[in-house]
Amino acid sequence: MKNTRLEAFSDAVFAVAITLLALDLPNRPIHSDRTLLSMLGAEWPHFAAYVVSFVTIGIIWVNHHEMLREAAHIDRSALLLNLLLLLAIVELPWATSVLATHLTQPDDGRLAAVIYAGSLLVMGAAFTLVHAYLLRDPRRRASRSIEGAQGVALRRNLAGILPYVLGCALAFVSPFLTVGACAMAAVYYAVHPRRQPDSSD
Amino acid sequence: MKNTRLEAFSDAVFAVAITLLALDLPNRPIHSDRTLLSMLGAEWPHFAAYVVSFVTIGIIWVNHHEMLREAAHIDRSALLLNLLLLLAIVELPWATSVLATHLTQPDDGRLAAVIYAGSLLVMGAAFTLVHAYLLRDPRRRASRSIEGAQGVALRRNLAGILPYVLGCALAFVSPFLTVGACAMAAVYYAVHPRRQPDSSD
Amino acid sequence: MKNTRLEAFSDAVFAVAITLLALDLPNRPIHSDRTLLSMLGAEWPHFAAYVVSFVTIGIIWVNHHEMLREAAHIDRSALLLNLLLLLAIVELPWATSVLATHLTQPDDGRLAAVIYAGSLLVMGAAFTLVHAYLLRDPRRRASRSIEGAQGVALRRNLAGILPYVLGCALAFVSPFLTVGACAMAAVYYAVHPRRQPDSSD
Amino acid sequence: MKNTRLEAFSDAVFAVAITLLALDLPNRPIHSDRTLLSMLGAEWPHFAAYVVSFVTIGIIWVNHHEMLREAAHIDRSALLLNLLLLLAIVELPWATSVLATHLTQPDDGRLAAVIYAGSLLVMGAAFTLVHAYLLRDPRRRASRSIEGAQGVALRRNLAGILPYVLGCALAFVSPFLTVGACAMAAVYYAVHPRRQPDSSD
Repeated sequence: MKNTRLEAFSDAVFAVAITLLALDLPNRPIHSDRTLLSMLGAEWPHFAAYVVSFVTIGIIWVNHHEMLREAAHIDRSALLLNLLLLLAIVELPWATSVLATHLTQPDDGRLAAVIYAGSLLVMGAAFTLVHAYLLRDPRRRASRSIEGAQGVALRRNLAGILPYVLGCALAFVSPFLTVGACAMAAVYYAVHPRRQPDSSD
Repeated sequence: MKNTRLEAFSDAVFAVAITLLALDLPNRPIHSDRTLLSMLGAEWPHFAAYVVSFVTIGIIWVNHHEMLREAAHIDRSALLLNLLLLLAIVELPWATSVLATHLTQPDDGRLAAVIYAGSLLVMGAAFTLVHAYLLRDPRRRASRSIEGAQGVALRRNLAGILPYVLGCALAFVSPFLTVGACAMAAVYYAVHPRRQPDSSD
Repeated sequence: MKNTRLEAFSDAVFAVAITLLALDLPNRPIHSDRTLLSMLGAEWPHFAAYVVSFVTIGIIWVNHHEMLREAAHIDRSALLLNLLLLLAIVELPWATSVLATHLTQPDDGRLAAVIYAGSLLVMGAAFTLVHAYLLRDPRRRASRSIEGAQGVALRRNLAGILPYVLGCALAFVSPFLTVGACAMAAVYYAVHPRRQPDSSD
Repeated sequence: MKNTRLEAFSDAVFAVAITLLALDLPNRPIHSDRTLLSMLGAEWPHFAAYVVSFVTIGIIWVNHHEMLREAAHIDRSALLLNLLLLLAIVELPWATSVLATHLTQPDDGRLAAVIYAGSLLVMGAAFTLVHAYLLRDPRRRASRSIEGAQGVALRRNLAGILPYVLGCALAFVSPFLTVGACAMAAVYYAVHPRRQPDSSD
């Protein structure tokens, strides 16, 4: 299979998942005696979770594209590993909604934060699996890739799992810390490119 | 019509349908006195059904791409048969939701399992129809295809309908067996490629 | 603008709209004392409306592709007319849902049928507008198009509006006749190609 | 990154967001003693808001395409600024729904109108940011672009923010004036092309 078809399908899944995030933004008050302003204020976790998840999926999309550009040959195993990654992407709107709905509740908030950081952890792990598989065999690497740069990228992938492990652990202290850790991870990956700026772009 | 436009439209439909599966994952308890954990535990069929349907649609997408690659010429009849296949794909999120909602209920569970396995059966039958039509006429086959390999693929398609016939029958014993049969079919098609590994990929 | 970008955007809108149709398929009984079977039986208009709208949007997608292939040059006016067509496509899932929800109700059924056939009428009129605009100026026509065939296609477009005018009128006799007229129109356009089979395909 | 992949992802996000607008169109009466006609009449803001938002997103899509065509080189910063634009696009169905739900309510209507015009303002500002970044560095400009035309385009972008500032201010007089200002902005940008008609199209 050529990269283009896999890219097109993955792009569409990323695009639908990132757009479905907005379905969770609150509109109608549950209690009818509230004003729109007080409802929006009380439901603030939905807006915070929307931004964090949107940026996270957006960054993963950018990295996904850079990863596929390095790959010369997509075989059936790579397709199936990529499906595993998409399985984790597609459930992020659900995990985002669970987090936003339960964040301010005393006990459910912790579980919701573990579910959210855990979902991002599974996504990061699946991304690393696809990446490691594509780089293992020289035949699957594009000729222009530099071996050293790939080692760096792979180590960065593994490091990309750590904030979400931390996010899961922090949920037992406070679910708000989990959201903060996931938000900082998104900002970090947005600012720091995975590849050296001097590589062919 | 060139294959690319049909591929692009089919890819988008596959991508939207696979992403809509996650809309059925449970978030809010129906009874407000339940914790998030007990709700998620009670609603486990939604997660199981999500994974089985996701993998099934994903595999069908991979096979759909391999099928179109073999076709040299897409005419209007092929387009209409492909629409029939997409009609079956698009209603899978609904069938998945019906299965997950009613699986643990004594009587409705059986009907829900028949609807689910029956939907997959219709999808498999539509896939076989498109495939058989594209292979019938040599002008519709790409030159690099080998006649023998196509016969194998077609027999495999027909065999791909059997687990879903079995799944419909098993619903009368237990709807859980139906889910198991559909899950095993997904795993089987994921592991066993439709084409020989030595063919040009 | 090259045709490809307009095709890609239109394809995605068609694909999302056709997939959202399935969100209206019924799952949970409104009255909890009903079985799944009796609920599905009572809600049959949702399944009928799903199939008619799916086939209609599918056929329009096929015809939309054939129309763009004839066009050599897409200017800003063509883009805006195409947006008008997409505006009509995007609201079809809503019109389908209104039809299915109210079809069996004595008074609301007639209005729902007029809304449904009227939506298809607007879609057909918008399609004809885009087509007529693209064919008016020879510079916007692809060189391989034959003038005679285009006249035939345009007359067919105009004829394609008639069943929906009839569908609106029939709603005052019975909304079921409206659904029948729209279903027959879909079957007719599926079977009869817009272009001669001997043209370059 | 080549423009094509960014275009494909942005197109898909635009297409999903524009199609999700229709999910807000009203179907079932909230009070069961109302007829379909009286319900549709009472819920007219949903239809008005649907048309204004659809045309606005459609025009932005056309302009987005024209902007990317001028860009020769997409780097990581451009990708991130484009993600910011998509973040604003994706929340428009929510802002549209908030506007339509609360427009006719005395106090909430003003806040809803500010949220709507404010969302369009953020979208316009993000568009201008992406455009300004792509034009700042000559290496990011396609060779065929004329410097003068770009200055015009940029001034037009900045002017494109003004109606939404006005829309926010008008909300304190009447939310209906806000909708009118946003509708007129959409019509204005639809009729007036951003680029000269004599430029290579």
